[in-house]
Amino acid sequence: MTPSSDSSAVDHHETPEASQDNRNQREVARRCADLMWAEDEASRGLGIELAEVGPGRAVLTMRVRPDMTNGHGIAHGGFTFTLADSAFAFACNSHNRRTVAQGCDIAFLAPVHTGDVLSAEAVERWRKGRNGIYDITVRCGSRVVAEFRGRSREIGGHIYEEDSGG
Amino acid sequence: MTPSSDSSAVDHHETPEASQDNRNQREVARRCADLMWAEDEASRGLGIELAEVGPGRAVLTMRVRPDMTNGHGIAHGGFTFTLADSAFAFACNSHNRRTVAQGCDIAFLAPVHTGDVLSAEAVERWRKGRNGIYDITVRCGSRVVAEFRGRSREIGGHIYEEDSGG
Amino acid sequence: MTPSSDSSAVDHHETPEASQDNRNQREVARRCADLMWAEDEASRGLGIELAEVGPGRAVLTMRVRPDMTNGHGIAHGGFTFTLADSAFAFACNSHNRRTVAQGCDIAFLAPVHTGDVLSAEAVERWRKGRNGIYDITVRCGSRVVAEFRGRSREIGGHIYEEDSGG
Amino acid sequence: MTPSSDSSAVDHHETPEASQDNRNQREVARRCADLMWAEDEASRGLGIELAEVGPGRAVLTMRVRPDMTNGHGIAHGGFTFTLADSAFAFACNSHNRRTVAQGCDIAFLAPVHTGDVLSAEAVERWRKGRNGIYDITVRCGSRVVAEFRGRSREIGGHIYEEDSGG
Repeated sequence: MTPSSDSSAVDHHETPEASQDNRNQREVARRCADLMWAEDEASRGLGIELAEVGPGRAVLTMRVRPDMTNGHGIAHGGFTFTLADSAFAFACNSHNRRTVAQGCDIAFLAPVHTGDVLSAEAVERWRKGRNGIYDITVRCGSRVVAEFRGRSREIGGHIYEEDSGG
Repeated sequence: MTPSSDSSAVDHHETPEASQDNRNQREVARRCADLMWAEDEASRGLGIELAEVGPGRAVLTMRVRPDMTNGHGIAHGGFTFTLADSAFAFACNSHNRRTVAQGCDIAFLAPVHTGDVLSAEAVERWRKGRNGIYDITVRCGSRVVAEFRGRSREIGGHIYEEDSGG
Repeated sequence: MTPSSDSSAVDHHETPEASQDNRNQREVARRCADLMWAEDEASRGLGIELAEVGPGRAVLTMRVRPDMTNGHGIAHGGFTFTLADSAFAFACNSHNRRTVAQGCDIAFLAPVHTGDVLSAEAVERWRKGRNGIYDITVRCGSRVVAEFRGRSREIGGHIYEEDSGG
Repeated sequence: MTPSSDSSAVDHHETPEASQDNRNQREVARRCADLMWAEDEASRGLGIELAEVGPGRAVLTMRVRPDMTNGHGIAHGGFTFTLADSAFAFACNSHNRRTVAQGCDIAFLAPVHTGDVLSAEAVERWRKGRNGIYDITVRCGSRVVAEFRGRSREIGGHIYEEDSGG
């Protein structure tokens, strides 16, 4: 059921080769994330932080500021979406293939308030050829506040040139 | 094909009563929008402007700022979504029934750049009981850059007390 | 607001050339539909009928049979979806470019019962390059029972060879 | 990441009370499924079989028949949807609360052919109050052919009267 993208799962029976392969994939994901983060003024401007990244996955966090809310302190859904969309972007670009969002569906499940710290966890559900599907769960503590599904498409090109890799 | 919510359509055969009814609905929509706008720090903070509002519809505009983009001047999809989501909110709250977004689907159809002026036009497609469906088209000039469909749900209560109305 | 795909709209000021162009597009749509219909055992097996077709649009109808329902005479949503999906297929293949569904969202808005006659009206909302978005409204009489949005993608090839055209 | 609905997971450290609770939930799910299945002429008519059911989950299978395809032996997407929608229905009604589909999104990821045996595995992703989100993966062997997300809503009432339970 769980996608194969859970990079944190450790298989103690993996061969040395598989283990090396996993390490390499994590390094690729980290390097892509570092390069993307340096350019992502939008995410940084919102106070988003990159908590974790791995092959096909990412966890980002954001504290809801007063300027993200209406006068009653309820967050505008657009900022919850934006956090999830950033997590989606880091996850779907973690394989060093330049990838964009084709479309997304979000379900708003609970209200979010000024001062809440949100985390968005993106997991690769399916990927084949140029297309992918990613599930992003947005939580406030342990409470789920939104479920987001993103449809990705590779557009050609890389985040960094692989030959120049270390 | 076009939903009945197009407030700008003028029916020259409408009766005086229907005409008065239309005027009243437009006044309700305008009054709801004014009250919501006063509270909507998030939309104002993004430089969004409310261009038009009517029963079941709204048009909002936004200029894409450098802080909404990545380092290459390509807009983060979250801000395109947020503009569309604001247009959705004004359209679905135009009947003076407090209404929230349950969920939304967005298709990103063309890239958006720093300095682009986007307009989001929200139209009520269907509404019955507490539920509604709204279509929001985001354009840059005449070019469509995103199509958004929102699912709304009334949560009880009004934007303003109707008895206190003029 | 309305897409340009409404083939039934007659512009009395159109030039003779534009008029001829419209006629040609309608002929292409009709010819594609005839060829697709001949192969579409699934739609015919469900008793679906093709009521109208034009460039970017199609109207299909279906009577809900007892074998499409549960024991209480409520239709399985899958058959409402299938009718809408067929309308989508005829609309998105009306330009003689072989096109498939990438994905679809359906909102079920009212229950459907044995014996109801449903109509699904598909309209092209947006099309560019290989991608398209189509809106399909399913009605039972004047009552809307479902709203469906389809995402299409051309896969190369034609429904018929254009050189062999009459 | 995986929702708590995976009824097949065995926790060897669970208390006797928790173990009994799990058994009860599985019995409720099985009893709901049996009652629904008896009424579901549509699913049976398509040759669908109910392979597994548990709290918040269900696995259904279907062999693609010639009458589900077009003349080239490619399955109509409506039947893939219908299988997934049935799995969704069994999963979201497994708690003995009468529940309907509000809406669904499906992504078609690979073509399906006559004779293929499809399995649809439904998992509860989120449920609170009257609302729920379910993910359904449709596979042909080990290959994923569609990903479906369903939005459910309880409408009041039960599949069976709980007092009359054994």
